[in-house]
Amino acid sequence: MDITIDRSSDEPIYRQLVRSIQAMIHSGSLPEGFRLPPERRLAAALDINRSTVLNAYRELKALGLVDAHVGRGTAVLRPPAAPAPPGAVANVPWRQLFRGGAAGSRDPILADLLAMTERRDLISFSIGLPAPELLPLDLVKRLADEVLRDSGPPSLLHCPTEGHTPLRNTLARWLASRGIHAETSEVLVVSGSQQGLDLLARTFVDPGDAVVVEEPSYIGALQTFRSAQARLIGIPVDAHGMRTDILASVLDHHRPKFIYTLPTFQNPSGAVMSLERRRHLLELAARWQIPVVEDDPYSELRYQGDPLPSLKALDENNLVIYLSTFSKVFLPGLRIGYMVAPPVVLRQLVLAKQGADLHSNTFGQYLLDRFVRDGHFAAHIDHLKDAYRRRRDLMAAALSGESGLSLNVRVPAGGFYIWCGIPDGIEQSALMANAVARGVTFLPGRACFAADPPENAIRINFTHCAETDIDVGIERLFEAVRETAATAPRPNIEGTSTAPVV
Amino acid sequence: MDITIDRSSDEPIYRQLVRSIQAMIHSGSLPEGFRLPPERRLAAALDINRSTVLNAYRELKALGLVDAHVGRGTAVLRPPAAPAPPGAVANVPWRQLFRGGAAGSRDPILADLLAMTERRDLISFSIGLPAPELLPLDLVKRLADEVLRDSGPPSLLHCPTEGHTPLRNTLARWLASRGIHAETSEVLVVSGSQQGLDLLARTFVDPGDAVVVEEPSYIGALQTFRSAQARLIGIPVDAHGMRTDILASVLDHHRPKFIYTLPTFQNPSGAVMSLERRRHLLELAARWQIPVVEDDPYSELRYQGDPLPSLKALDENNLVIYLSTFSKVFLPGLRIGYMVAPPVVLRQLVLAKQGADLHSNTFGQYLLDRFVRDGHFAAHIDHLKDAYRRRRDLMAAALSGESGLSLNVRVPAGGFYIWCGIPDGIEQSALMANAVARGVTFLPGRACFAADPPENAIRINFTHCAETDIDVGIERLFEAVRETAATAPRPNIEGTSTAPVV
Repeated sequence: MDITIDRSSDEPIYRQLVRSIQAMIHSGSLPEGFRLPPERRLAAALDINRSTVLNAYRELKALGLVDAHVGRGTAVLRPPAAPAPPGAVANVPWRQLFRGGAAGSRDPILADLLAMTERRDLISFSIGLPAPELLPLDLVKRLADEVLRDSGPPSLLHCPTEGHTPLRNTLARWLASRGIHAETSEVLVVSGSQQGLDLLARTFVDPGDAVVVEEPSYIGALQTFRSAQARLIGIPVDAHGMRTDILASVLDHHRPKFIYTLPTFQNPSGAVMSLERRRHLLELAARWQIPVVEDDPYSELRYQGDPLPSLKALDENNLVIYLSTFSKVFLPGLRIGYMVAPPVVLRQLVLAKQGADLHSNTFGQYLLDRFVRDGHFAAHIDHLKDAYRRRRDLMAAALSGESGLSLNVRVPAGGFYIWCGIPDGIEQSALMANAVARGVTFLPGRACFAADPPENAIRINFTHCAETDIDVGIERLFEAVRETAATAPRPNIEGTSTAPVV
Repeated sequence: MDITIDRSSDEPIYRQLVRSIQAMIHSGSLPEGFRLPPERRLAAALDINRSTVLNAYRELKALGLVDAHVGRGTAVLRPPAAPAPPGAVANVPWRQLFRGGAAGSRDPILADLLAMTERRDLISFSIGLPAPELLPLDLVKRLADEVLRDSGPPSLLHCPTEGHTPLRNTLARWLASRGIHAETSEVLVVSGSQQGLDLLARTFVDPGDAVVVEEPSYIGALQTFRSAQARLIGIPVDAHGMRTDILASVLDHHRPKFIYTLPTFQNPSGAVMSLERRRHLLELAARWQIPVVEDDPYSELRYQGDPLPSLKALDENNLVIYLSTFSKVFLPGLRIGYMVAPPVVLRQLVLAKQGADLHSNTFGQYLLDRFVRDGHFAAHIDHLKDAYRRRRDLMAAALSGESGLSLNVRVPAGGFYIWCGIPDGIEQSALMANAVARGVTFLPGRACFAADPPENAIRINFTHCAETDIDVGIERLFEAVRETAATAPRPNIEGTSTAPVV
C-alpha cells in the first residue's frame, strides 16, 4: 500500500488515510479480500497515532468498503460497481439482486399441472379440489347477507392478527366436540393451511435444520420446508401410517426441529396411522422432546369405519401443533385455516403472521364463524361424505376394471386420493405427457418424496371431477399407461430398489 | 481416543469404529468441536486400512454426529440430548427450537398500541385506519350478491397465485388512467401491501443486505426488512421528500438491494417528493442499477393541489416496483393489495407468494373487480376526500389552538397523517403513558426510524376518529404534553443532534 500523508494539509490525517485507501479500493489495486495492515503496524509505518488509523478503518467500515472481525483483521469488501454514465439506459441485473434461496426451483411437472387446471378439455384427477357443484351457494349468499346486516363495518375492517375472536371461540368449541381441548387463546386463524406451514417454517427452521416428514408426503409442505432450506428426513409410510419403528432410530441420530405428519387419510397415500403407532409416535416425541406437527385437513371426510382420535386429542404433553383448514370441506377461496399450539409457540406464530399479512381476511372469518356456529358445517360434511364416498367407489371400480396392467390400487377409508402403484419402468413424465394427450391428468407420485423419488406410484384425486367423468378419465389413464409401458426403457434397478415402502 | 479393534469379531471393523466413537460422543468424552484424528493417522495407529476409517467417518457424518469440511477435518457435533426415560412427562424446550431470527422483538410501544385499539374509551389518533362510518355497506352488500349470482362457485374456489385474471386486467386499466402503463401479466394481487413488503424481502434480502429506507418511514416496512435481517440505511426526508442529494453519496458506498420510498403523502411525515427529486431519484437508480420500491397507498387521497406523476409513471427503465392497496381507500378487511413489477421479478414474487398462501382470497378479488370496473371506486374516493379533507382541517385548527407548546405541525396535502414536532426533552414513552391516562393515543415517531430515533416528533392520524372527537382528543394530547414537559428530564443533547431533518 502506497500512502502519503501530507502533514501540512488542512485535511485531518485520518481523512487523508480514508481517501487514499478508498481510491485504491475503487481502482482495484486493493482487491476484494485484501487484508489491510494491522492498525499498529500501519501507524508505525506512517509514523502517526494508532487511534488515527483506528478512526480511518472505522470510517471505511461505515462506508461499506471494508469489514473488520476480531482476530481476522480488516478486509476489503467487493467494491461497489462503477456507476453507469449519466443518461445511460439502466439494465437492472435482477437475477443478481435476488437473494440466495429465492430462485427456488419449482418442480416443472407441477408448474405444468397448475397451468393445466385452466383447460376445460382435460379431466383433472391431479389437484386436491372439492367438487364445485356441491358448494352450498344459496347458504353462502344467506350467510354473507346476515354477516353484513348483523355485524356491519367491523366485518370489512381490520381484525386481530390472531383472528376474529368469536371465530376462535367457535373453533375451540368445534375442536372440543372432536376430543381436542384448546383454549380460545391457543387457536390461531391462518390464511389457509399453506400459510400455517409457512409460519411453522419461519418460526422453527434455520437453513440446514432437520425436519422429519413422511414419505410420501404433501407436496406443498415439502416445498415450503425445502425453501426454508430444511434438511428433510423421510420416514416411510405403509398401510398403517408412518413407520414409527424407523422414526425411533432416526431420532437417535438427528435432532429434527419437528416431525410433520398427516396421520389421517394421508396425502397422498390415503393411509390412516393406527392407534398403536399414534401412541408410539407421541411416546417417541415426548422422550426426545421433539414437537409433532399434525396436519389434519381430511379427517372429517371418513367414508367407512370408526374415527380414531387425532394426535392432538391423545397429546398429554402439549407437544402437538395442530393444523387444519376449511379448504377441503367448504370454501378453498376464502383462504381460512386454523392452528392450535401451546401459548409460547402461538406467540411466535403470531409475530410471523403479523409480518406476513397482518391478519387473514375479516369477512371470510365472520362468514365461517356463522357457518360453524349455526350448525351448517356438520350438515355440510354429511352431504360431502355421501357424495365423495360414491365417487371413491366409482373410481375404485373403474380402476379394478383392467387387471392386465397390474396396478396396485389402494382404496382409502376417507379423504381425497387413491394412491396407485404403476408398473416398474414407466417414467412419470412420459406417462403424464401421454395422459395429457388423451385428456386426463394425475399427480406424479415422485413429487411427494423428500429424496430419491420412485417412479412407481401416482396420486389420483376422486373428489373434483363429475361422477360421469370418472369412467372416461380412468379409461384414458389406462391407455396412457399401456402406451407408456410399451415404449418404456428397461426398468431402472437402482431407482426401484430405493423406493420407500408405501 | 481409546479405541480397541477386535479382529476376531464378526462385526466389520468400520462398524466397530463407528460404535466406539459413537459411544464416546454420547458419553461426552469426545466433546462438541473435538476434531477426530485425520484418517491416515488413525488408520496407522490402529493398523487398519485407510478406507475403513473413511467409511466409519462417513457413517458418523450420516448419523449427524460429526461434520467434515475439506481443510478443516472432521469435528464432533453437539450430541443429541439423552432421551427422557419412557413415560416421563415431556417438557419441550420450545425457545431453543425456534430459529435464530424468529424471536424478533416487537417494539413494546406498538404491542401496547395494538392492544389499545380494542378499548372504546380511548380516542385513537394512533393507527392508520379509514373511517368506519364512510364505508358503503349497502354497495358492498349489492356487489357481494351480484358476484355470487353472476359468477357462482368460482368466486369461492381457488384462483391463480397471480390473482383473479379479470381483476388484474381491471387494475391494469385503472393504473393506465393514472399514467402507469402495465401489462396484465405485470400485475400481481397480494394479500394486503404488508404481504407485498414481505414478498419483496423474501425475494431480495439475504441477512446483512443493505436496503435504503426513508427516515422517518412506514413502521411495518421497517419491521419487515429488519426481520429479514436487512441492514437499513436511512435517508432523511424533508418537506420535499427523500433527500436525494444524500442518497447519491450513499449509493457511492453501499450496494442496497433496493430503495424503499413512499413518495406521495409519505407515512408518517406527509411529505410529497418534488418532481425534481422524483427525476433525480430515478436517475440515480438508473445509474447505479438499483431497483426502486414505490409504496403508494395514499396518492388517491389528495385534498389540495395538483397530482404529481408516480415514480412508476416516470420510470423509463422498468426499475420501479410499484405497490398499492385497497386498505386505505376501501376495505382493509379484504386484505387485497397489488403490485406491478417487471416480468422477471414478478415470477419470483409469484413463487414466494405460492409458498406464503397459495393465492389471496378469491371472493374479495371478485368483489373488488366489480367495485373498480363498475366505476364505484372513483366515486368512493371523491366521497372519502371530502370527508378526510374536513377532518384534516379540523385537526390542524385544533393543533394550532395552543401556541404555548411550540408544536411544529406539518399539515399535509393528502393522506392520513399529521407529523407533529414536540418540544425537545419529552420522552415519548412518558408522553404516551400520560396520553393514554387522559384517553387519547398517537404513534410515537421514534418507531419510524431505522436507527438513532429522535424523541421529538409524533404521528397523528386524522381519518379514523369521528369529527366530533377531534377537539376533545387534541385537548387531551395538549394536557399530556404539558404534564410530560413539566416532569421532563433535561434535554438530551446527543439524542437531538442526531435527529434527521424531517
